[in-house]
Amino acid sequence: MIIGVPRETFPGERRVGLVPTAVKPLTRLGAELLVESQAGLAAGYPDQAYVDAGARIAASRDEVFSTADLLVQVRAAASNPATGQADLEKLREGQFLIAMCDPLSDPQAMVNSADRGAMIFSLELVPRITRAQSMDVLSSMATIAGYKAVLLAANQLPQMFPMMMTAAGTLAPARVFVVGAGVAGLQAIATAKRLGAVVLGYDVRPAVKEQVESLGAKFVEMELEAAEGKGGYAREMDEEFYRKQREMMLRVVAECDVVITTAAIPGKKAPILITEEMVQAMPPGSAIVDLAAERGGNCELTKAGEVVEAHDVTILGPLNIPSDIPRHASQMYSNNVTTFLKSLVKDGKVVLDLTDEVIAGTLVTRGGKCVHPFVRELAGLP
Amino acid sequence: MIIGVPRETFPGERRVGLVPTAVKPLTRLGAELLVESQAGLAAGYPDQAYVDAGARIAASRDEVFSTADLLVQVRAAASNPATGQADLEKLREGQFLIAMCDPLSDPQAMVNSADRGAMIFSLELVPRITRAQSMDVLSSMATIAGYKAVLLAANQLPQMFPMMMTAAGTLAPARVFVVGAGVAGLQAIATAKRLGAVVLGYDVRPAVKEQVESLGAKFVEMELEAAEGKGGYAREMDEEFYRKQREMMLRVVAECDVVITTAAIPGKKAPILITEEMVQAMPPGSAIVDLAAERGGNCELTKAGEVVEAHDVTILGPLNIPSDIPRHASQMYSNNVTTFLKSLVKDGKVVLDLTDEVIAGTLVTRGGKCVHPFVRELAGLP
Repeated sequence: MIIGVPRETFPGERRVGLVPTAVKPLTRLGAELLVESQAGLAAGYPDQAYVDAGARIAASRDEVFSTADLLVQVRAAASNPATGQADLEKLREGQFLIAMCDPLSDPQAMVNSADRGAMIFSLELVPRITRAQSMDVLSSMATIAGYKAVLLAANQLPQMFPMMMTAAGTLAPARVFVVGAGVAGLQAIATAKRLGAVVLGYDVRPAVKEQVESLGAKFVEMELEAAEGKGGYAREMDEEFYRKQREMMLRVVAECDVVITTAAIPGKKAPILITEEMVQAMPPGSAIVDLAAERGGNCELTKAGEVVEAHDVTILGPLNIPSDIPRHASQMYSNNVTTFLKSLVKDGKVVLDLTDEVIAGTLVTRGGKCVHPFVRELAGLP
Repeated sequence: MIIGVPRETFPGERRVGLVPTAVKPLTRLGAELLVESQAGLAAGYPDQAYVDAGARIAASRDEVFSTADLLVQVRAAASNPATGQADLEKLREGQFLIAMCDPLSDPQAMVNSADRGAMIFSLELVPRITRAQSMDVLSSMATIAGYKAVLLAANQLPQMFPMMMTAAGTLAPARVFVVGAGVAGLQAIATAKRLGAVVLGYDVRPAVKEQVESLGAKFVEMELEAAEGKGGYAREMDEEFYRKQREMMLRVVAECDVVITTAAIPGKKAPILITEEMVQAMPPGSAIVDLAAERGGNCELTKAGEVVEAHDVTILGPLNIPSDIPRHASQMYSNNVTTFLKSLVKDGKVVLDLTDEVIAGTLVTRGGKCVHPFVRELAGLP
């Protein structure tokens, strides 16, 4: 069987679906790799690296789509609104596509993408079970985002992160507050600690306190009702809960030089956790990095993709952060996909085992229909 | 006596000569602080912070210059070529000015600045003796530059710095090569180690090997003649030395993702250490941060103040880095100046003790003449 890797077309996207090191394990599964020219270039993998590893470079993008039995993309369907549709129209019945499709944000687009009769797996839907950790693209991309958020903040700040005891006096360390202790938040905490800051962490789920503390950060206790939802994600809370939370956060935020927010709920608008009042209370020169910018932002003043200056505070709302660290992000994504393929491909053939909860949980379209119960529900289908 | 702090006028300069915490120790010396409005704003110190500390805000810049007995600036004379001359013309006989004047780069400008009869101390000339460490502005600003260089590199790189063992596989750490282990180089090494990179350090002075290793970096041995000059600075070597050094460095650079160069010799053009051939040998996506950009650069492809893309490598030639971390840079500079003033001011009066090697070593103009032997020599004066 042929696995095809087209070049990504989402504006600014630098990742690639599979990196050259994937060739060996995929060969063992009986698959050949066919790569569109320059697909890996922006991630640091020129065509020659693929050829050296044993992959073939296609003569055109169309060759990849028409020849491959299975396609691997980073962004497809709703995850690539402007140019992804053109790709979907190239799919054929019985073909497989593995990608991030963002089905929860735009379930109707996902339903429409079933038309061509291809089988589309959306990797954001990988269930949060132990066996599937190694296929969890949300976790691996969140690792990158948490790391990068700290760099963005550190680069913005008018002071250094570590305490420095120098001949020119002692400099106070930066105080960093990380809101939301999922994978991105924990990585942000770890990175800020590494760089020498005093770090505070908060999450609505009290169960993560121990993880925050194990990284050397102080866990901010809010004495509020716990909010752990299904699958280990934070669940959505009511407005009264958020109001109380904001009152308590004002006190913490006012004492910090950096706030990194990571509270995104899949498929939902992000909750406002940092109000304008809180921004105003921060020391002049402080920075906020809002990792939920893509979902509307956790800060009231965030503008997606922009740098906002307000009340002497800089608010960054970066988009598509993993693409800014494309080599490592592609390595992780490629490893996620490769592990997924090991559950899907046997002896050069796709074996669709719908009793496998990872396969069934990620398969969104099949036989011309959207077959994923949750996506159907979101799209208002029975 | 009145100590005046004008707002800095060098384009983009965000530092300030004295911060509000300086008021207390200066009051003890019998001095009052007079600050131009908004002088500290860009460094995170609004006027109110000075007022709260006991300083006075002047009605105008002219008031600062005409009233103050002693002026403290970050950049004066040749260190502020476009707009510094206007300030020098405001000086009067018997007035004191303490600043960074860059006298070694433009000794003639320094000679000319003597005209007004003021006494100008150039803090870059603080001798490298133990007692004067706390006044050493080159060291304190180099601390900032070394830290920031790592952030710039990390922000540029397509991979993360630390090794990460994740469910999506193990990611290799970045390899960082720091060339020149002075204050900036050692701080760059410390920061890159903190962030989790594998770090290599090199310096022409074998004596610093121990310091490099004590920070957890590998010292690259070049087996070349030692090159320690006067005062602990690297001395200038001949072209043959640099050629041999380049041959050996090619091997190291080719294996690194980041190169940070810090080899600047006061008042001289920086030596070329990283050739185009070396840049070409680096992995695609690598980054070079050239801290010697202001002095022509240590990399052949560096363009001062620009970001150059060549051979899939990004070469950053940042200028005036300490100004990008203005709060901490101003704190350190202010502490340096305050300590210096403790040697110069007694009971509200300047006591010019020319037997004090720090005072004598930094005093450049007096009585209408350039009085600094080395600056005179550079300007071709007897």
